[in-house]
Amino acid sequence: MDENLRAAPGPDEAARSAVAERARSVLRPAGALARLDDVAAWLAAWQRTEHPHVDRPAALIFAGDHGVSSEGVSAYPADVTAAMLRALREGVATANAMARALGATLDVIDAGVGRPTGNIARESAMDPARFETCIRLGRDAVAARAGADLLVFGEMGIGNTTAAAGVVATIFGGPAEQWTGRGTGVDDGTWRRKVEVVERARARAGTVRPFDALREVGGCELVAIAGAIAEARARSIPVVLDGFVVAAAAATLEAASPGALEHCIAGHRSPEPGHGLLLEKFGMDPLLDLGMRLGEGSGALAAVPIVRLAAAVVTEVATFGEWGLG
Amino acid sequence: MDENLRAAPGPDEAARSAVAERARSVLRPAGALARLDDVAAWLAAWQRTEHPHVDRPAALIFAGDHGVSSEGVSAYPADVTAAMLRALREGVATANAMARALGATLDVIDAGVGRPTGNIARESAMDPARFETCIRLGRDAVAARAGADLLVFGEMGIGNTTAAAGVVATIFGGPAEQWTGRGTGVDDGTWRRKVEVVERARARAGTVRPFDALREVGGCELVAIAGAIAEARARSIPVVLDGFVVAAAAATLEAASPGALEHCIAGHRSPEPGHGLLLEKFGMDPLLDLGMRLGEGSGALAAVPIVRLAAAVVTEVATFGEWGLG
Repeated sequence: MDENLRAAPGPDEAARSAVAERARSVLRPAGALARLDDVAAWLAAWQRTEHPHVDRPAALIFAGDHGVSSEGVSAYPADVTAAMLRALREGVATANAMARALGATLDVIDAGVGRPTGNIARESAMDPARFETCIRLGRDAVAARAGADLLVFGEMGIGNTTAAAGVVATIFGGPAEQWTGRGTGVDDGTWRRKVEVVERARARAGTVRPFDALREVGGCELVAIAGAIAEARARSIPVVLDGFVVAAAAATLEAASPGALEHCIAGHRSPEPGHGLLLEKFGMDPLLDLGMRLGEGSGALAAVPIVRLAAAVVTEVATFGEWGLG
Repeated sequence: MDENLRAAPGPDEAARSAVAERARSVLRPAGALARLDDVAAWLAAWQRTEHPHVDRPAALIFAGDHGVSSEGVSAYPADVTAAMLRALREGVATANAMARALGATLDVIDAGVGRPTGNIARESAMDPARFETCIRLGRDAVAARAGADLLVFGEMGIGNTTAAAGVVATIFGGPAEQWTGRGTGVDDGTWRRKVEVVERARARAGTVRPFDALREVGGCELVAIAGAIAEARARSIPVVLDGFVVAAAAATLEAASPGALEHCIAGHRSPEPGHGLLLEKFGMDPLLDLGMRLGEGSGALAAVPIVRLAAAVVTEVATFGEWGLG
């Protein structure tokens, strides 16, 4: 994985500069939409074109079950994962409604529902073979959508904010409390139990390399998403990151190979405290801050139209020169 | 105008409650998308339906010239207003590109280009007859788009952030500095001149009622937008507010008749300091905070897809009951 990441292509700086230059020349005061102009230039750099666009966005939602849910760390029972997997497949969940409204495709990928990972408080989440299978699952899912011009990765899995907190606590250290949030909305007692589980998982894992932390303390959908983000990078497809769980998966790439997330932007800021810390580490300022805490890629999906508009207001607006005001 | 506003219908509370109730029952943790759920309930209340939607959004962009630009308060010469009016009509400006990407109609309304208002530092912006004409222009523009399910009002006019600052400084008092921003990007010297002009305009107007402040110190596009917002209220069509200039026009309605803006939400937060103050007075938390400072309704247009998604994730997601998880 590390070698793959280092071999991946960098951004197309000529495309980035051309779009940034056009953004400075279009019919509006310089910098009036600076933030959107930056998004358009980023999109151009990774789409490798002077004409960035969001015509074929694709959402890939990965689901998995977590052995750690037996520790009572969630507001919902573990079998909700399977029920929500069905709902996503039937097209009646939140991510489906968003994808339809956006004209995005949505694939649902079962990364381990009904086959929970080990309980990370006591044992490895998965062995190296399963880890490789999950990485491959994520990579293949992206390869199957190689025609997408913008990717969103989402997740669903009861217990997965505990796994995400465990992974980043293992990689970055610091008090478990700072990485542990309310997930789908746990009460104080459950939150304290969750913090303790994160602490035990991290202590068990010890000091390990980022992908080993992901394998020891993560979950199948997190591993698949790490693979998917890496594959998007290899194919130079830009990515809008969702909330805490996706960011934790992404963090393993960034920790293993700094710069690995340059093809990604942050769609939104989740209320999970760990998400804010990861955004800081990534140096990312999210497009939206609407208190969204659902998962399913919903925060990233909500940001897709902003990216689409950012491209349109550079490519489809006349320049002062074209308009005879040069 | 005051009587009109008081006679306008209130929200449909039954529709609001039905949508809020459905939002609590759909397949996601309670409150996970609370902010979007609130937007959907607001939309339902003003569309007067349990099935809120954004299928026919309409943008109305009002343009006007300002006598005060002769005071040197802008980064651009006054004839840019006419050039940008042409660009908007030809479909090559930023608002056109956004509207196309969103599937929104866009009307451009000339509220006084080439017929500048009086220089507000020295004289009334307009007489009562012209004020009434501009109000009617705004009302008629909305009436012509009565089939819209969501309205965005935008403005374009060199000098109009000076007029906007003058209006709200006159209505709400406080130091002129706090209402006066950089507009399209003026330098320090121009900004100080602008503050002084706002101060003179406000001193000249004295203590007047809100619509008199708008007539004395405002501009044609601001007056038209006040009329448009009032007409939208009379027709119970929800509105996404844009930045400082639109908010200043809206503020005259709120000051004249508290609650007059309940059919409005704030699309974005502009870097104009006066906009933040107005949002506070309105009790509105904008959907976006992307440093946009263009006008043309662009900040409101950028928020339209968020409103569309908010509706979709209530109306198109199954409830726990429907999904057999009740």
